[in-house]
Amino acid sequence: MLRELVFAPVAKELAEVERRIQARISSRADLISEVTTYVLGSGGKRVRPALLLLSTRVCECEGGERAVDLAVVAEFMHVATLIHDDIIDNAQKRRGQPSAHARWGPHVSVLAGDFLYSHSILRLVSDGDFRILKAFADATVAMTEGEILELKWHRNPDILYEDYLMVITCKTAALFSAACRTGALIAGVDETRVEALTEFGLNLGIGFQLVDDALDFAASEEVLGKPVGNDLLEGKVTYPLIHVLHRDRSPKRDEIRRLLCDGQVGEAEVETIRRYVTEGGGVDATVEEARRHVGKAREQLVPFADTAARRSLEMLVDFIAERKW
Amino acid sequence: MLRELVFAPVAKELAEVERRIQARISSRADLISEVTTYVLGSGGKRVRPALLLLSTRVCECEGGERAVDLAVVAEFMHVATLIHDDIIDNAQKRRGQPSAHARWGPHVSVLAGDFLYSHSILRLVSDGDFRILKAFADATVAMTEGEILELKWHRNPDILYEDYLMVITCKTAALFSAACRTGALIAGVDETRVEALTEFGLNLGIGFQLVDDALDFAASEEVLGKPVGNDLLEGKVTYPLIHVLHRDRSPKRDEIRRLLCDGQVGEAEVETIRRYVTEGGGVDATVEEARRHVGKAREQLVPFADTAARRSLEMLVDFIAERKW
Repeated sequence: MLRELVFAPVAKELAEVERRIQARISSRADLISEVTTYVLGSGGKRVRPALLLLSTRVCECEGGERAVDLAVVAEFMHVATLIHDDIIDNAQKRRGQPSAHARWGPHVSVLAGDFLYSHSILRLVSDGDFRILKAFADATVAMTEGEILELKWHRNPDILYEDYLMVITCKTAALFSAACRTGALIAGVDETRVEALTEFGLNLGIGFQLVDDALDFAASEEVLGKPVGNDLLEGKVTYPLIHVLHRDRSPKRDEIRRLLCDGQVGEAEVETIRRYVTEGGGVDATVEEARRHVGKAREQLVPFADTAARRSLEMLVDFIAERKW
Repeated sequence: MLRELVFAPVAKELAEVERRIQARISSRADLISEVTTYVLGSGGKRVRPALLLLSTRVCECEGGERAVDLAVVAEFMHVATLIHDDIIDNAQKRRGQPSAHARWGPHVSVLAGDFLYSHSILRLVSDGDFRILKAFADATVAMTEGEILELKWHRNPDILYEDYLMVITCKTAALFSAACRTGALIAGVDETRVEALTEFGLNLGIGFQLVDDALDFAASEEVLGKPVGNDLLEGKVTYPLIHVLHRDRSPKRDEIRRLLCDGQVGEAEVETIRRYVTEGGGVDATVEEARRHVGKAREQLVPFADTAARRSLEMLVDFIAERKW
């Protein structure tokens, strides 16, 4: 599989990350570990741990024990956010299964998220590097701010591309960026390289989320693990739709705007909007925009030596714009 | 009022804490600041900020700007936990008003809690003292663990005093302790004094929660700001009941145990259990146990000079065992 190929230089460390994630949560025997096992075990791609490990490696540093430990933190932080997001969005499905929130209710899942998050902070405090702590603390604040912005723009067709970009930068790119920055900080490279990898993660994250939002219009439920058009059902106006609404001058545009603002968006409305977006070129434009960002990510890798890790990060860049998962 | 008297030595700083709490949240214009304003503004007693400020002062240090800043963090952390706890407990009322959860739903209140918590961590990172960060990170993990334990013992009459003590130590005393420890760390006193104030906060917190749990059986809704017998309605078996269940050998005991385990505890059942507990001496025993703990807290103050701050902390100790709020 492509994933194995891309992550090959850090396969050993990723296996150890996986082992620790499992060991960590199964050492307890309570409802919360049941929830976290369920969410952590349900097919996560471990992109953030992989980014952290590859970032250390691209700096020609082994990383070792410490990198593995912080890679686990990156995944825990991500999963904590996922669990809380599903409450915020009232999402019923995640990765093809009922969401933790749908299965256990908000009272258990809020606690499961808090558990993972508070343990992550404690782990970072034990690690003892203020710059890494700050990277993750900034990312967490950003993720919360992203959710707040998303709530603000809920079912609002007036959202501009800049607003949307801010949402996805906060919600997705900030943690990608923190993971890559942490990788560089572990390696102890100079400021230029730390900033380059920070910027790499940021642009990769933006590209990743753009493709995610395009797939919500273009993929199938089987592939996504959640219903297609899910963003629309949740009231999220993303780039594919923003792009078309911005360019369209036909009366159809007002009809679509009304659909978004008035009443509940159901399956019929989702289908209408999906057709409007795909026919209006919204999906292609989004993939194009994603390519622009992953292109910027790629440029950041220039100062790094030609290693297996660099080739992996480049493959990841190329893959993100083409991905179907 | 007694509160003014007790907090007098740090009245100026507490006013500044209040001003910052208000300024901080009203600077934003979104739903989340509406929620946090609502919760932060609804009659909190600011016990944790006061403890932090008095702890610095009892070490004969002014504290200044930095102490005020960290006192705000202590309150933010507390309120973040309150907001999430109300989701976990499905609580409808808090301080005499509808809870944030009841008013805005879990999806908004989970985000409001995350907002306060993530900003608190970032503030601690900016402050830059690892020992203080660790104190708060430990408290946060403890608070989550406390909630998990509470879930585990939900409507379980087999809970022992030790289990209950662990729950309240995690849920309440840990943050009291972190606030006092932080006060000492700001003052930069020797390890003995830091540990004394850490221990002081821990025992004060245990005493405070014991009285809280006694009031749930003995006070009126008017005084509590939430229904009396609320813990029972939420399935929490606390010390007043544990004490009586442990001593009682009559058939009544089995009846009460069955009430707890079977079906829903409604208002009629709450009334039955309340009478059982008060008549069995559970409330008095709880206040007695609280006095034992605040007594231990009081002993920790011996090494400190006789200042207004020390007299305040002693008044607080005495007051806690007698309080009706």
